[in-house]
Amino acid sequence: MSIKSPYLLFIGDVPDALAAKTAQGVVDWRPERCAGQMRMEGCGADLGIPDMSIEEAVKAGAKTFVVGAVNAGGVLKDTWIPEVVKAIEAGMDVASGLHVRLQEVPEVAAAAEKHGAQLHNLRHSDRTYATGKGTPRKGKRLLAVGTDCSVGKKYSALCIERDMKSAGYNAEFCATGQTGLLIAERGVALDAVVADFISGAAEFITPETDENKWQVVEGQGSLFHPSFSGVTLGLLHGSQPDAFVVCHEPTRTTMRGVPTPLPTIQQVIDATVLMGRLTNPAVRCVGICVNTLALSEDEAKAYLANTGEEHGLPCVDPLRFGAEAIVAEVESQFGK
Amino acid sequence: MSIKSPYLLFIGDVPDALAAKTAQGVVDWRPERCAGQMRMEGCGADLGIPDMSIEEAVKAGAKTFVVGAVNAGGVLKDTWIPEVVKAIEAGMDVASGLHVRLQEVPEVAAAAEKHGAQLHNLRHSDRTYATGKGTPRKGKRLLAVGTDCSVGKKYSALCIERDMKSAGYNAEFCATGQTGLLIAERGVALDAVVADFISGAAEFITPETDENKWQVVEGQGSLFHPSFSGVTLGLLHGSQPDAFVVCHEPTRTTMRGVPTPLPTIQQVIDATVLMGRLTNPAVRCVGICVNTLALSEDEAKAYLANTGEEHGLPCVDPLRFGAEAIVAEVESQFGK
Repeated sequence: MSIKSPYLLFIGDVPDALAAKTAQGVVDWRPERCAGQMRMEGCGADLGIPDMSIEEAVKAGAKTFVVGAVNAGGVLKDTWIPEVVKAIEAGMDVASGLHVRLQEVPEVAAAAEKHGAQLHNLRHSDRTYATGKGTPRKGKRLLAVGTDCSVGKKYSALCIERDMKSAGYNAEFCATGQTGLLIAERGVALDAVVADFISGAAEFITPETDENKWQVVEGQGSLFHPSFSGVTLGLLHGSQPDAFVVCHEPTRTTMRGVPTPLPTIQQVIDATVLMGRLTNPAVRCVGICVNTLALSEDEAKAYLANTGEEHGLPCVDPLRFGAEAIVAEVESQFGK
Repeated sequence: MSIKSPYLLFIGDVPDALAAKTAQGVVDWRPERCAGQMRMEGCGADLGIPDMSIEEAVKAGAKTFVVGAVNAGGVLKDTWIPEVVKAIEAGMDVASGLHVRLQEVPEVAAAAEKHGAQLHNLRHSDRTYATGKGTPRKGKRLLAVGTDCSVGKKYSALCIERDMKSAGYNAEFCATGQTGLLIAERGVALDAVVADFISGAAEFITPETDENKWQVVEGQGSLFHPSFSGVTLGLLHGSQPDAFVVCHEPTRTTMRGVPTPLPTIQQVIDATVLMGRLTNPAVRCVGICVNTLALSEDEAKAYLANTGEEHGLPCVDPLRFGAEAIVAEVESQFGK
């Protein structure tokens, strides 16, 4: 999937910032790809970039109208449909993170057909992949894994990419989820592919590359999450990481959406090494990324210091304090 | 997916028995569901049941025309299409294990529409599932896992179901693949569901049941197969087995279709317990099933005795010598 930027980020009339987090993720990480935001009356979110009409966005060069909001049931609201149609008539493609496929909305399908617009459904995977082969590929890979879903794997990978680039590495974020796709412009929503092709799609996302280039791969789920562990293992085997970081949220006690208790960081390190060895016998942990949003600055620093010491690994909140310690660990283990 | 029997098993003009193995599996395990076979001129396979025309099969009560043959590219051959259409016109549903969806063949789609026939695509999953929850469910479950794909997991599960029933257990084979679906009449082809729903579909296949009933679950792939490990882990977590058997083919040196070396039986036991604990903390191995087809009877018996002793577990070729020793182990560990 390859999505043309710049984007006009449409967040409709969502009630709050949480419902606009797909769009916010793009603004946070790729502001240069965002022409502006478009909001409707009553919108309770603000992405912090210029408000634009469809006409203004097209004048500013916008190529894709991004429905960057979630909605109960994942449908395209009736009041949003005319805006999507207008965007197509003005010459834009459309990308949507909703559950419904854009092609299933008759007005949208008809407009796209008439104007030759591309419709990108970020949650769906319409192409086929080869099955995974497990053959070693040139290049280096770092995968973000987690003690749970939604613990900051995507943001950790993006921080590590940023700090590796600052340190002079050739590094590239590789997207495996819908928000990641808009940030990277390409990638695959791994949870949407047919089960037989998870590792094959992961191999497609992280192809052979230069010996010294690092692909920094967005993780999915957790080996210990009873809903999504299959995606996690297929991604681990397909991306054949040389290095991984474990992401963790310290105040969580049960896995997201289910009553299963959280595994320890050490359990995740051990299981990732044990299973990851299949396609990369030298796979190793290079750090721990903690989302300390719920902790004060002092609490956060103490937690990171203790956790790092306990595991003998750099431990950072990459968003709050930077991921430089993890990049230093990569340099000491793999060189530059 | 629920498929009406008896079946008319259509194997067209396949060159050999291997190309008819889906149909053969149904004849081997559920002869009472098979009205007859239908072959075309030049067919190199024989399922060993009566040859029938479509008219004869309908008179004999056949409800579903099963395309039980594989074909290069997984397409419905041009010369097979008229037979499928005739079967629909005669009042039968159609089930196909081919890659192509029956609905994509215009003549077949039109006939089904006109006559109200159901079209079952065994390799595709058209319904949606909830995501897996991991919540403990009543009833008991035994899962067949493997050192590789195609090492006899389905046949082992069917042998164990048979021998548990003979020993007085309430046991039911649960299908997770296309041939299994025809044998069980229901189930889900797990490798065809969207990746996010693997464990949810596995929970759907193995629902809560009577405290003393055993669901004997067909396995898929291997935790150590770089192409399909995600399906295997999702099935392990979703089926939350109390017991598992490891299936193995002793002459194989690399995993099917890839150059990855085979894991040891002990590695599979250890990884299955480690990962399986997430949804069933008491998961344990109750035996080893070896496909000894490539060994003489003396070699086979020696191999089974040595392997069983090495692991301290019953070790059988369930198809050649029966699975009674595994049923006895289940009884000693779980009672009756």
